[in-house]
Amino acid sequence: MNESIDGSLLESIIRTALAEDIGPGDLTTSAILRGDERGEARLLAKSDLVLAGIDVLAETFRALDPEAALRDALADGSEARRGQTLAVVSGSLAALLTAERTALNFLQRMSGIATLTRRFVDAVRGTGARILDTRKTAPGLRLLDKYAVRAGGGTNHRFALYDAVLIKENHIAAAGGIGPAVQRVRKQAPQAARVEVEVRNLAELEEALAAGADMVMLDNMEPEAMREAVRRVDRRIPLEASGNVSLENVRAVAETGVDFISVGALTHSVRAADVSLLISRTERER
Amino acid sequence: MNESIDGSLLESIIRTALAEDIGPGDLTTSAILRGDERGEARLLAKSDLVLAGIDVLAETFRALDPEAALRDALADGSEARRGQTLAVVSGSLAALLTAERTALNFLQRMSGIATLTRRFVDAVRGTGARILDTRKTAPGLRLLDKYAVRAGGGTNHRFALYDAVLIKENHIAAAGGIGPAVQRVRKQAPQAARVEVEVRNLAELEEALAAGADMVMLDNMEPEAMREAVRRVDRRIPLEASGNVSLENVRAVAETGVDFISVGALTHSVRAADVSLLISRTERER
Amino acid sequence: MNESIDGSLLESIIRTALAEDIGPGDLTTSAILRGDERGEARLLAKSDLVLAGIDVLAETFRALDPEAALRDALADGSEARRGQTLAVVSGSLAALLTAERTALNFLQRMSGIATLTRRFVDAVRGTGARILDTRKTAPGLRLLDKYAVRAGGGTNHRFALYDAVLIKENHIAAAGGIGPAVQRVRKQAPQAARVEVEVRNLAELEEALAAGADMVMLDNMEPEAMREAVRRVDRRIPLEASGNVSLENVRAVAETGVDFISVGALTHSVRAADVSLLISRTERER
Amino acid sequence: MNESIDGSLLESIIRTALAEDIGPGDLTTSAILRGDERGEARLLAKSDLVLAGIDVLAETFRALDPEAALRDALADGSEARRGQTLAVVSGSLAALLTAERTALNFLQRMSGIATLTRRFVDAVRGTGARILDTRKTAPGLRLLDKYAVRAGGGTNHRFALYDAVLIKENHIAAAGGIGPAVQRVRKQAPQAARVEVEVRNLAELEEALAAGADMVMLDNMEPEAMREAVRRVDRRIPLEASGNVSLENVRAVAETGVDFISVGALTHSVRAADVSLLISRTERER
Amino acid sequence: MNESIDGSLLESIIRTALAEDIGPGDLTTSAILRGDERGEARLLAKSDLVLAGIDVLAETFRALDPEAALRDALADGSEARRGQTLAVVSGSLAALLTAERTALNFLQRMSGIATLTRRFVDAVRGTGARILDTRKTAPGLRLLDKYAVRAGGGTNHRFALYDAVLIKENHIAAAGGIGPAVQRVRKQAPQAARVEVEVRNLAELEEALAAGADMVMLDNMEPEAMREAVRRVDRRIPLEASGNVSLENVRAVAETGVDFISVGALTHSVRAADVSLLISRTERER
Amino acid sequence: MNESIDGSLLESIIRTALAEDIGPGDLTTSAILRGDERGEARLLAKSDLVLAGIDVLAETFRALDPEAALRDALADGSEARRGQTLAVVSGSLAALLTAERTALNFLQRMSGIATLTRRFVDAVRGTGARILDTRKTAPGLRLLDKYAVRAGGGTNHRFALYDAVLIKENHIAAAGGIGPAVQRVRKQAPQAARVEVEVRNLAELEEALAAGADMVMLDNMEPEAMREAVRRVDRRIPLEASGNVSLENVRAVAETGVDFISVGALTHSVRAADVSLLISRTERER
Repeated sequence: MNESIDGSLLESIIRTALAEDIGPGDLTTSAILRGDERGEARLLAKSDLVLAGIDVLAETFRALDPEAALRDALADGSEARRGQTLAVVSGSLAALLTAERTALNFLQRMSGIATLTRRFVDAVRGTGARILDTRKTAPGLRLLDKYAVRAGGGTNHRFALYDAVLIKENHIAAAGGIGPAVQRVRKQAPQAARVEVEVRNLAELEEALAAGADMVMLDNMEPEAMREAVRRVDRRIPLEASGNVSLENVRAVAETGVDFISVGALTHSVRAADVSLLISRTERER
Repeated sequence: MNESIDGSLLESIIRTALAEDIGPGDLTTSAILRGDERGEARLLAKSDLVLAGIDVLAETFRALDPEAALRDALADGSEARRGQTLAVVSGSLAALLTAERTALNFLQRMSGIATLTRRFVDAVRGTGARILDTRKTAPGLRLLDKYAVRAGGGTNHRFALYDAVLIKENHIAAAGGIGPAVQRVRKQAPQAARVEVEVRNLAELEEALAAGADMVMLDNMEPEAMREAVRRVDRRIPLEASGNVSLENVRAVAETGVDFISVGALTHSVRAADVSLLISRTERER
Repeated sequence: MNESIDGSLLESIIRTALAEDIGPGDLTTSAILRGDERGEARLLAKSDLVLAGIDVLAETFRALDPEAALRDALADGSEARRGQTLAVVSGSLAALLTAERTALNFLQRMSGIATLTRRFVDAVRGTGARILDTRKTAPGLRLLDKYAVRAGGGTNHRFALYDAVLIKENHIAAAGGIGPAVQRVRKQAPQAARVEVEVRNLAELEEALAAGADMVMLDNMEPEAMREAVRRVDRRIPLEASGNVSLENVRAVAETGVDFISVGALTHSVRAADVSLLISRTERER
Repeated sequence: MNESIDGSLLESIIRTALAEDIGPGDLTTSAILRGDERGEARLLAKSDLVLAGIDVLAETFRALDPEAALRDALADGSEARRGQTLAVVSGSLAALLTAERTALNFLQRMSGIATLTRRFVDAVRGTGARILDTRKTAPGLRLLDKYAVRAGGGTNHRFALYDAVLIKENHIAAAGGIGPAVQRVRKQAPQAARVEVEVRNLAELEEALAAGADMVMLDNMEPEAMREAVRRVDRRIPLEASGNVSLENVRAVAETGVDFISVGALTHSVRAADVSLLISRTERER
Repeated sequence: MNESIDGSLLESIIRTALAEDIGPGDLTTSAILRGDERGEARLLAKSDLVLAGIDVLAETFRALDPEAALRDALADGSEARRGQTLAVVSGSLAALLTAERTALNFLQRMSGIATLTRRFVDAVRGTGARILDTRKTAPGLRLLDKYAVRAGGGTNHRFALYDAVLIKENHIAAAGGIGPAVQRVRKQAPQAARVEVEVRNLAELEEALAAGADMVMLDNMEPEAMREAVRRVDRRIPLEASGNVSLENVRAVAETGVDFISVGALTHSVRAADVSLLISRTERER
Repeated sequence: MNESIDGSLLESIIRTALAEDIGPGDLTTSAILRGDERGEARLLAKSDLVLAGIDVLAETFRALDPEAALRDALADGSEARRGQTLAVVSGSLAALLTAERTALNFLQRMSGIATLTRRFVDAVRGTGARILDTRKTAPGLRLLDKYAVRAGGGTNHRFALYDAVLIKENHIAAAGGIGPAVQRVRKQAPQAARVEVEVRNLAELEEALAAGADMVMLDNMEPEAMREAVRRVDRRIPLEASGNVSLENVRAVAETGVDFISVGALTHSVRAADVSLLISRTERER
């Protein structure tokens, strides 16, 4: 995560999360600690995982203690085994205790996404197909969810409604056909936006091609139909398979020859990676 | 969800989510629609589920079209079968198309949480134990995650670090024992805050009792030890079981006699409920 | 401007602008008016212009008086003659007086942009070339500046750094060539993003074509070179001419056959359209 | 610009502008750069200009790279010739590339304002008249627009509706005359606020004087009438000329003897100063 | 309070205050009420007072229940006797209970300020002197504190650092004398700003007059010296007495002939007016 | 005040306060100072007081000058005598002058609260009763008001509506009795929340005990009744006395044997502590 660039949005996400958990104060920690104790938190994998979010975790601690330091950290995208230490954070003991839960909530979700993404990526290895995410992310966390997909080896589809055009059935109906829909978009939308059309069968695919779509999404089509679509398009534009893709069927989809396979579950059904922080008090270094 | 009361925070969560997805505009919808078309969105369960978030979905549409209306809606907490219509929203077609994904992202996560919670609640039915959530929520969405737990029949533990005291191992070490830790808290924390102490064995339980804890969390203890804890406490204060609770073992934990069982997975490993919106254009009513 | 969709960002821009001008209060109006007077504001063109921003003006008044009403309004994009009434706003007299300056600041800038854009569009009429804007907008006002360009008949280029890729000289140098730069982008950036490459001569154009660019910007090239570029590309991808385009030379550039011509001056050197508001007190309707 | 004082508002303006352009990320730069490259940006005048906004430019880069450093910078208010280097910024190459456009958008607008202001100031040199700005600024940028006027040698009129009283025709009508209007204001408005009255002729001027105005604005009056006004007022209070002032007629207006001349065009019709940033990669200093 | 004008800032103050008290929810009310109960709140004076803040109270309830209605309300500035009903608010019972404390916190502080101000105003009645407030307000509440002073019959001094100039000892020292200080300000500050100078004795007063100050503050001067100052200034500019003014000595100060007397205690040492809300459940009107 | 923990909310309070006072700029200081002068501010007690808010004062200066430094500071909670120096702040002279008023507004209110609280605490010394605050705080400043109570030796009651349950008369009426009210709360509210019931007489006290309240507030009861309540409860749960407590009667209340006495005046009728800042220019250290 290139902090100098995405930093402002990330900072706002972290602040909102900390405010949600801390509000006017951590009753327990502020009552018990003096405030000048130092501590260390060892981040430990309790199951096999692909790491994502190590910088987000570090920034979360730094939001409470600007001098909190990360060391011995694995890079995002690394595979780690159960029992492995992922990183060590040192800083104010109060900051470590107060931010612990929020920092883990970020990292566990992100690593859960990266871990699942990697499994999909591995499942299609060698086929040429790439795994795409969707907009089915946790509200407010899309930046992190999509980053975690990349850490897992996946590719991002559009970020949001504003950075690409995806013409769906309702748009087509409102415009009176695929052709008119693409035309309206070419006239109104920014030049920079790629125009993708969602189709449900080969007839609609032909319409989309005729209308000059930049990319086509094959929505819930059978493998044979997808194979035929691949044959007809013949690499002129990219094809994306979408709909009910699972670890069980993703390889079969990939072998139809499509360029992209989008998987909503990457971000809408996340299993938190099992990670814990072992916090201990340290003597202040002199 | 009592909107008149929680409305301000909810509104801010919804605005952030819509801004994330819409930014400067929905390229596709704004290029294709005129803006005055009317539409209807039927919310359909595609698997069995416990509904949660129907008002959040409605408010999300209302943020774009203040006159969007909900009808035939099931109440949150209702069980629905695959194929059942959960509600119908009518309003501006553009608003329905633009807010669709965000509204579903909220509702699918919340219903996923309620559905899983209900399974845990059902699993302990008759034992007297109650299912608690944790602070392992998606950053920024705790209000909704915890509401969904209630909709599923669960009970909320503390909301955050500011509304209750939970003295953990590190606090105890810093204070020099359970007794001093509780004392410091009694002196510093607001009178209103309940003081819970986390213990790992029966000896620590005795210390917590002696220190005057209001509630004790039994962390990762074996069923026999928990049973003994229940016997010793004898209902003077509530006992909470915590650590690696699953649908498989939750009944056994409940049968030890503990008052509460907290389950992180309710909110950290959410499987989105399978729900879709069928949007269609309608004629403007006159 | 599709308000139901862009409303949230627009509302924030208007609120910031009003806060800037009103702060803790309009000293003059609040001291002199009772607050329940009604008024009417006639919007008058004092020079020929292309109108843009009429809804922004109305929303600005509505931010102070939710019941302010617009009537007899020309549509954005309309050409108006000096002396023509563009619209009439009725509402609280205090709101009209207090918001007058802010509302005009929006509308005069936007109409100035639309008016200038229309002149460029007229100048290339019949050539097939389209006029593009740039990111050289007033900080904070890009949504409105780009909307005004569309109202004037221009086409938006990318909105910002996040919705399309434009590979410039420095990026090429950092990547070690156009080919590697495009490759890195194809691997990292979202699938949805179109990839444009900036080139300074025909040799770089060939590299960009070989690398698979989706669009090429011809930066400060001579007409002959542009003509040759058009010949070589042969409509496979769109070509954009950029650099020191003025009303004097834009037709010559268009006649080289390029698809797009981008003009920074549309938004960086805006001459406010000459418009005034004639405000008068009215009797309250009963 | 005294940063330690105005810093908070300036910081918010810069953050809004960067967020507008970067959103969730600079697709091109983050895909191509590693993130640790260093660079240097030379700011070059491409036409003669009066510089304004050098600190705003520096702060914009610092918002992405807190260690970005400015050297060899001309002071705001300096006149620079075409081809002259105005400053050099060094820092993270990614930060330079990502913030380039936003930083220039600020500086080019501000220098455009300063340059035009200087021309008006020069035109009235020796007459004793001072050039004032108005509230006709780009919404959200008033702080910077007004600063640039000062850098150009102009004087700020009131900042907004809250820091001074300006009684206009509509206020006078509502109050039932200039006298009652001034009286109401003296009673209601803060003691600190200066009370200026707008008049259209000598009769109204006499009323304003009788009412005890602190300053009078002569709105769209002919030079002879203004001269007579100057004679009658005899320096007891300042007089401001307003309405359709241009570089052609400003000297004539000044020679009537008025104290101030306000010019809307200074900020409502800004021609961006022609400035560019030459960015190059540097080796990291050791 | 002219809501249509100050509404935006007021709304933000009210939202912050409600968020502070409600956060994620009113545990008691949301657990016990169904949410559709109706209620009425009678606002009762429990001691003699001058009312201020009735609209703020109403807006606070409306923030939770947009249809909350105020009736039988006394106007701000009215004197009320112990036992008198000040207003009745009807609306959602849940909204009344949840917002009760915040609404009263506003109104009691504001009425406390108005009540004390009225006593000072009464104490100087007939002398021609007017009572001014200061910037010694509760952080974040200045808009309301200063409004309450006006409701009590006082006059506002400057609102903040940005709307008037007040040259104090440290500024004078930095500039090298009163003359140079006034000169610098005349050159740099907006034309609209009145320039007041703080003086400690008659010699400094003469300097301030010579420098052309618009107003002078006599800081902690003895009555005789103030009387002499009044004699010397002879109504050319207003004089303000400042420093340790109390109800006991304010009349003596006023009788020196000064135009204004500023009293920090009006807002820095507020005694909340004794007011309570009697809330009762009502049947929903049909 | 543990800054590393509460910092984010505190920072926001300070920023709002500074923005309120500075807005677009301190006209006087920015016109007169160059900006690089150094200064020192000595904080002086002008009456006997208990100090609170020294870190808030320091943070306020640091918001304008990050390098402002505090030295020789008394700790919050210390008693100081008239004439005593409380701390010295050094930093940019402009920052000291511009932030002076805001910093003092914080510290004087907080020290006023601490000073009054200490008097109540002293009045009940030896009785075992503890002094509680209420939610009658200045809107937006509750964090600081409650901190100041602790600095004075008082104990915080609940922070807000969200961190504890307090069942009042209206809730009881709505639920149909104390028993049902407590039951509903136990079912709906988070487990962590302590449940307090407000009672007006001994009969209601018995109901509250029977319902299992965690704490009872004796509202406006006579000393004899309170004594009887203490006898009946016999330390099983804490009792809080509330209503019209003053320095005159607080000892009598304490001697009834109640555990807590809540005093609204601690925060709703604050008399600012008399403190001033003596600012002087210093030479820049080399």
